[in-house]
Amino acid sequence: MAPTHDESAGASVDPRVVRTRHDILGTALRMVVDEGPEALTHQHIAQVAGYSKATLYKHWASRAHLLRDAFDAFAALDEMPHHVPTGDIRADLVGEMRTFRWAIEQHRLDRMLAALIGLTASHPELEATRDLIVTEGEHVMRAVLGRVLAGARLDAAVHMLVGSVINAALLHGTVPTDDVISACVDLVLDGVDRY
Amino acid sequence: MAPTHDESAGASVDPRVVRTRHDILGTALRMVVDEGPEALTHQHIAQVAGYSKATLYKHWASRAHLLRDAFDAFAALDEMPHHVPTGDIRADLVGEMRTFRWAIEQHRLDRMLAALIGLTASHPELEATRDLIVTEGEHVMRAVLGRVLAGARLDAAVHMLVGSVINAALLHGTVPTDDVISACVDLVLDGVDRY
Repeated sequence: MAPTHDESAGASVDPRVVRTRHDILGTALRMVVDEGPEALTHQHIAQVAGYSKATLYKHWASRAHLLRDAFDAFAALDEMPHHVPTGDIRADLVGEMRTFRWAIEQHRLDRMLAALIGLTASHPELEATRDLIVTEGEHVMRAVLGRVLAGARLDAAVHMLVGSVINAALLHGTVPTDDVISACVDLVLDGVDRY
Repeated sequence: MAPTHDESAGASVDPRVVRTRHDILGTALRMVVDEGPEALTHQHIAQVAGYSKATLYKHWASRAHLLRDAFDAFAALDEMPHHVPTGDIRADLVGEMRTFRWAIEQHRLDRMLAALIGLTASHPELEATRDLIVTEGEHVMRAVLGRVLAGARLDAAVHMLVGSVINAALLHGTVPTDDVISACVDLVLDGVDRY
């Protein structure tokens, strides 16, 4: 199949265009983690990625488009680590919370989420991408809790277990200790056991 | 007492300087809520507040200083609404979570927090201000839960009840329903009751 040359569309199959976009979006994502969301300008990304500013503007007419595609690329990476459930609900919930903590400590997932939250406040067009990332991020927690809870109680438990890590990381600048993770899971499951 | 004229210091007692700073920081805070954190530039704030760009630069040499003072002003406002505890733990926790939700819906506290989270990722000097705001925001929840929990279990319960609202607002773009708030409090307190 002959390559197309519509460089303005993400659907282009020209391998050179694909590689250029991949390089630039990868640089943009590393920059979010290393330097924070405010570093993400056409000029700075072009400089770091080794492309001309004109090339960047050819692919992304505005900063909003660039941000959207960078976070879409992150969502598409599907490299959010998850615990593999074993069937032991308590161990599975603790395992998933520790995996979330590990992603924050090792891959600075907290910085990616902080950037996504801060930028979505200014760029509502990022909401759909944020929703994709959140759905993927929460699906193991929701599946494990869904074995013992439903409805508002399931939503509550997912928000509490995910939210406890989010609150610690993004608003306290720390991560929950093993003791706090175990206490979260115990409080929720001991509540469940009453029914 | 004769007014001083050191306009570079926040400690100045010249009432004109105090008023200028108050006006400008108030404009900056409204701008965070109405337009998002990225709107906060010297030029845009000067324009909206009706001062010259030179005046803004006289008070705040960099955007980082301006951001820090704007969030410090928010922390100092001490207008974070709280539920007044009655002694009924379940009602007090539900009341405090609903008050947090009300502040998000009525005063867009979520946008203020989103901006603070996103900007702190780029400006670590905002961490101390973020910590002040978080301590003030959580103190009623911590006091009520502290009547029945301590140590890691207290930290866990605070992170879960605050985090459930944070996760809903900042990562799902919504607020918890009454049913979800009640389910959060019931799950935590039913867990507590087991001991």
